[in-house]
Amino acid sequence: MKNNWSHIRTPTLLIDEKRVRRNIHRMVTKAARAGKVFRPHFKTHQSRAIGEWFRDEGVSHITVSSVGMAEYFASNGWNNITIAFPCNLRQIDRIDELASKIDISILVDSEDVAEQISKLVNHKLRVFVEIDTGSERTGIRYDNPEAIMRLYALIEESEFLEFAGIYSHAGHTYACRSREEVKKTANEAIDRLEQVAAVFEKKIGVCYGDTPGCTVLDDFGDIITDLSPGNFVFYDMMQVHIGVCEVDDIGVVLCCPVVTEKTIEPVVTLYGGAVHFSKEQLDDKSFGKVAMLNPSGWEDSVVGSLERISQEHGMVRLDGVTAKAGDVLAILPVHSCLTAECMAKYLTLNGVYLDHYQKSR
Amino acid sequence: MKNNWSHIRTPTLLIDEKRVRRNIHRMVTKAARAGKVFRPHFKTHQSRAIGEWFRDEGVSHITVSSVGMAEYFASNGWNNITIAFPCNLRQIDRIDELASKIDISILVDSEDVAEQISKLVNHKLRVFVEIDTGSERTGIRYDNPEAIMRLYALIEESEFLEFAGIYSHAGHTYACRSREEVKKTANEAIDRLEQVAAVFEKKIGVCYGDTPGCTVLDDFGDIITDLSPGNFVFYDMMQVHIGVCEVDDIGVVLCCPVVTEKTIEPVVTLYGGAVHFSKEQLDDKSFGKVAMLNPSGWEDSVVGSLERISQEHGMVRLDGVTAKAGDVLAILPVHSCLTAECMAKYLTLNGVYLDHYQKSR
Repeated sequence: MKNNWSHIRTPTLLIDEKRVRRNIHRMVTKAARAGKVFRPHFKTHQSRAIGEWFRDEGVSHITVSSVGMAEYFASNGWNNITIAFPCNLRQIDRIDELASKIDISILVDSEDVAEQISKLVNHKLRVFVEIDTGSERTGIRYDNPEAIMRLYALIEESEFLEFAGIYSHAGHTYACRSREEVKKTANEAIDRLEQVAAVFEKKIGVCYGDTPGCTVLDDFGDIITDLSPGNFVFYDMMQVHIGVCEVDDIGVVLCCPVVTEKTIEPVVTLYGGAVHFSKEQLDDKSFGKVAMLNPSGWEDSVVGSLERISQEHGMVRLDGVTAKAGDVLAILPVHSCLTAECMAKYLTLNGVYLDHYQKSR
Repeated sequence: MKNNWSHIRTPTLLIDEKRVRRNIHRMVTKAARAGKVFRPHFKTHQSRAIGEWFRDEGVSHITVSSVGMAEYFASNGWNNITIAFPCNLRQIDRIDELASKIDISILVDSEDVAEQISKLVNHKLRVFVEIDTGSERTGIRYDNPEAIMRLYALIEESEFLEFAGIYSHAGHTYACRSREEVKKTANEAIDRLEQVAAVFEKKIGVCYGDTPGCTVLDDFGDIITDLSPGNFVFYDMMQVHIGVCEVDDIGVVLCCPVVTEKTIEPVVTLYGGAVHFSKEQLDDKSFGKVAMLNPSGWEDSVVGSLERISQEHGMVRLDGVTAKAGDVLAILPVHSCLTAECMAKYLTLNGVYLDHYQKSR
């Protein structure tokens, strides 16, 4: 290894600002061309510094996954935030407090919850009705217009709630394994949102967002008004696996010191395990892929696989390269959102640390 | 739910001090009866407050999994610490600094690494030779006495390194699914350590530790001198699954607000996902089991399963109980070490927060 990256002593999440800015620029451009409001999901990077890179591209509306994250970004000057998580009644006081200062949108899929919220808030709160377009996680099913309209009516009747439109995360695109398959699944989800929108007698907001879908589609139709993907900012091996990006689109790698090697097999043990990566796996059961560092960043060829992890150990099988104790290997993460969450800070190629939302939980 | 635990607003790791102290007391007593030095692994709880509960039982030697964790506990008055992780050469300056103040032991399984360490340290450093007794992770294989003795000789020749003995984590007991199977596997690992010890011409330190093995065995033989299990402090559903503890031995639960329910199925969505639990699964693919809170803690019967998680969402199937948005469910974690790491703090049943080693990475 020519550059031994001597300032890296422990597992360190390295970020390539140029790639990340390129990923942001591409998605901003796509949303603008399609005429959609871009509300990127900040749950992937969770960093005020990276938020500024979005601001540089003209982004003003954002999406987050928790109340604490909304508070963090609100304190950094973001004043139009969607909390894309089913409203947690136990935090309604904090949501109401935020709504007293900035434009806050929440997600609701239950009449019971909407009724309770309407009694508890004292400030204008925008409410998206969450729609399940196939991910089978949360949201009212797209083919249940009666339930959707009942919830809509409840929101309209309420003093402080304002109907923001409908929202769907088509998370089931993560099960696809080709661009064509993603395209089909995403278009089907959009068709389902169009079905729902058609039930309303007026033009409504329709927010759609998932990285595979937003990466492969260019035409989102006329009904969709907002896009809110998140993972695209970094991408990761899962997105490569799905087929929607290339390894050279990945914006972060976890740099791990090699601590010991097996003498008989091309296997080395890294300082880097479940507490650094989390435990997401590709279909081949690996927890990440290996890249080599170079003096200016990392190489884009995959030269090994992170085959096994425990709490702090990672075992890597190398392919055509060698590494010994004291070296550092770059691991392309399977799921960059979770790895960023575990690491909670970033090191730029210039040696500057960027902060990450410190968990308010 | 009689007590609505109104102070729990977000995912919160609840700890039952009584159970945890009972788990500690049992293992301390077992080690004392067997005449072994007890060096509990603190990587599970990583908390100075919980460390005090060990101190109350007379514990003075501890084990940790990183240099940062050693520094954290050293600053809390622990002065005999084993860093049970293959020595990371990139942190040797920090290890040497620690060794200037307290009694530090490290693990080495490579002659190359031992040679480099010996050139870099200026203070007495105790070195365990790590032995692989079947876990196939790190360590020199037990049936390779030549390599073991070469490494031993290197340590003995070095000015500052002091041979501490041999160390093995029999992590492969985690693959067992009954007490009998654990007993067999653990005894086999101990036999292998005895084989290694027999090669030395003197009595040596032999440290053995894994929660399944240390829980089921009472007789560790004459050769083992030290025991270093860690997970037993909390136990978890994995240990129940392996068959070595009962649900009522588990010392921590992750309390998660219910945010929405499906109307057709007994499925509720929790605020609680991969960023709170990590992603460890039982053989049935579940990410945790459900218990109900009661006014004084939680019930010991399992009433549901955490079937699916994403970044912050958890989907639970309930069995014979109901829960609605605004309630809180207690989730028995699959792997308490990782869940504690994700949460990074504890709430006692009395409402006091206990701190967790703040990641120095």
